[in-house]
This record gives sequence, C-alpha cells and structure tokens, in this order.
Amino acid sequence: MTTAPREIEELIELMAKLPGLGPRSARRAVLYLIRKRGILLHPLADAMHAVAATARECITCGNVTTTEVCEICSSQKRAIGEICVVEDVADLWAMERAGMFKGRYHVLGGTLSALDAIGPDDLRIPRLVRRVADEGITEVILALNATIDGQTTAHYIAEELEGRCAVTSLAQGVPVGGELDYLDDGTISAALRARKAL
Amino acid sequence: MTTAPREIEELIELMAKLPGLGPRSARRAVLYLIRKRGILLHPLADAMHAVAATARECITCGNVTTTEVCEICSSQKRAIGEICVVEDVADLWAMERAGMFKGRYHVLGGTLSALDAIGPDDLRIPRLVRRVADEGITEVILALNATIDGQTTAHYIAEELEGRCAVTSLAQGVPVGGELDYLDDGTISAALRARKAL
Ligand SMILES: [Zn+2]
Ligand SMILES: [Zn+2]
Repeated sequence: MTTAPREIEELIELMAKLPGLGPRSARRAVLYLIRKRGILLHPLADAMHAVAATARECITCGNVTTTEVCEICSSQKRAIGEICVVEDVADLWAMERAGMFKGRYHVLGGTLSALDAIGPDDLRIPRLVRRVADEGITEVILALNATIDGQTTAHYIAEELEGRCAVTSLAQGVPVGGELDYLDDGTISAALRARKAL
Repeated sequence: MTTAPREIEELIELMAKLPGLGPRSARRAVLYLIRKRGILLHPLADAMHAVAATARECITCGNVTTTEVCEICSSQKRAIGEICVVEDVADLWAMERAGMFKGRYHVLGGTLSALDAIGPDDLRIPRLVRRVADEGITEVILALNATIDGQTTAHYIAEELEGRCAVTSLAQGVPVGGELDYLDDGTISAALRARKAL
C-alpha cells in the first residue's frame, strides 16, 4: 500500500515478485524507473517485450535461446564428444564466464528431489541419455551444485550412463552446500581441471 | 557476458541498472522472468509501458501521479492548513503507511547539498514558500531524513518560513543518520506525535 496511482501500484506489485526484490526495493526501483523514464523505463519495457516474444528453449540442450538450436549447440568451434551437465541456465552462464569448457552443455532444468516429487522424467535426463548415444559422447562432466539433491542427481546420471561413456564431476574447489553461480571464475576453472571419475 | 542471445543480454544489462540489483541478481531475475513469461514478463512489460505513459509530477506538491493534481492534494478529506515536507516520494509513501498524518505533502525532490551543488532553487523550496502563503498554512512539519544534508535543509526551510507559520520537525524516534523509508510505522507515528518546534 503506497497511496500511489493504480498503474504505479500494479508495477510495484509485479516488481516485488522478482527474486531479490522485496516490497521496499520494488518501490525504490519503480520511483527510479519513473525518474529515468526515457533512458530506462521505456527501453526496459521494450526489452521485456522483445524477450517475451523471442526467448525459447534450445531443443537439444535446454539452454535459453532465440533460435531452435542455441548458439553453443550449433557452433562449429565447440569440441565434439564432451557434454557438461548443469542444473539451470544460470549455471551454464557461470561455466561460460569461467571460459574453460570448450564442449557443449545439457541443462537438466533442476535436480531430482524426493521432497518436491521431481523424478528423472521431469528433468532432461532421458534426453541426455539419448544425446550420449546419438552424438558419440565420450565424456559427460557433471557440473551440479554441491547440494544433497545435486549430488543425488549426479549419482543417478552416473548410473544411467555407466558403460556408455566416462562420467566425471567438478571436484576440487566447490564448497559443500555451495552453488555454482556464486563462485568466482577461478574456483570453477580449478574444479573443472581437477574433475574426477565418479 | 553470458553468451545469451542479444535480446536477453540487453534485458540483463538494463535490469542491472535498477537500484538493489547487481549483475548476478539481474541474470537470475531475467531467467525467472523467462520462466514466468505469461504471468510475469508480459504483464510487467505492459505495466512499465502504462507507467511510462501516465506517470507525472503533481504540479502542487511534486508527488507522483497520473493526473495534473495528485489524489492527496485534490482530496476533500485531507486536513487544511498542514503541510508535511518530505525529501522524495518514497518518504511520502512511508508517511502514508504510518497513517497518522492527515494533511497534505510537499516533496522537495532532494536536499540541499554543498557537495552536489544543490541549492534551494534546485528543490521545490520556493514553491513551498508560495504554498504557505496561498493555502493559508499554519504548520509545516519537516519530515526530512536525519542526515546532515536533511537537517541543513530543515534549518534552511525553518528560516525561510520564520514568521509565516509554525515549523515543526519529526523528533523522537528518528535515529541519527537514519532514513525514513527504513523505519517501521510505529517509529514514524511516535516521531510525528513528539514533533517539536524548530
Ligand atoms: Zn543448445
Ligand atoms: Zn499533490
């Protein structure tokens, strides 16, 4: 409740739904947007419409893209035979910022979770198994968060792929309970170099 | 840098300009928006366009509004003769949430600042002086932040209005160096009740 006009009140309520913004920071952000109407509010609204109209999932890996197959999957420069498995697109971006992995990705879309009743078919695990066969993959690198669900998922995938290809996982440098997207690039690079067979 | 498509990259860059959002939270927010495209991304873009098209300053008090004169200034229910002076609209909203002040407002648009070369004419101080005469104001309540610039501004206004009306300020309960918008409603109410003559 701000006694603001309805249009502004509605914008504040929507902004407050964003992760990382509470009601107070949503109010501040909206007042800032109104002050910066020309250089920020209009461009932001346009950018949102553009993303809403174009963003989609890569049909191969689940990355966010504006084309049927994402830029990484369709690039001729990426190494063939290696897939790095991540939980979500933010983690893919974190791996790319580290700049060390030259293969392609597979975005699971979450982790197995007994609590949330998320099973293998709710994630892109069956599609990963097919890709390993179809693309002649020799190594799958699991870059999952060092959480209980992340590690449960890693072991499930390792079992599914047993005998089909090497399965390794990020090791040294990922703190227990830590999330990839919070780590600095050097830590991620070190963990990738020190990856070990599961 | 996220290796995301250009449209998404641009949206992340714009989101990162919002107060309270850094690059990481902007990336998270954009991925969240893409997942919630139908229920959040489209409505948010529409709400931004609506605000960009309608938001303006109240010509009387400087409040944000969609009409020439804001709802508070044009309300018949607000007490006549009292003006509460705030630095910005967020502070006006904080006062309204406290729900104790029944008069009208005057939004300065900042504080005097030697460092930033902000003088009285850069704020709505001349207009405040005119309002005191034109509207038959008997009391001006200064609800400025308890910062050095806020208190400098309070004393400047008190001198400008000397002999024209009573000038009081929020007192008890506002912590030194504190900002109004961070306070709970009870603290603001107590400070208003205990206001003292300057
Ligand atoms: Zn892809
Ligand atoms: Zn007004």
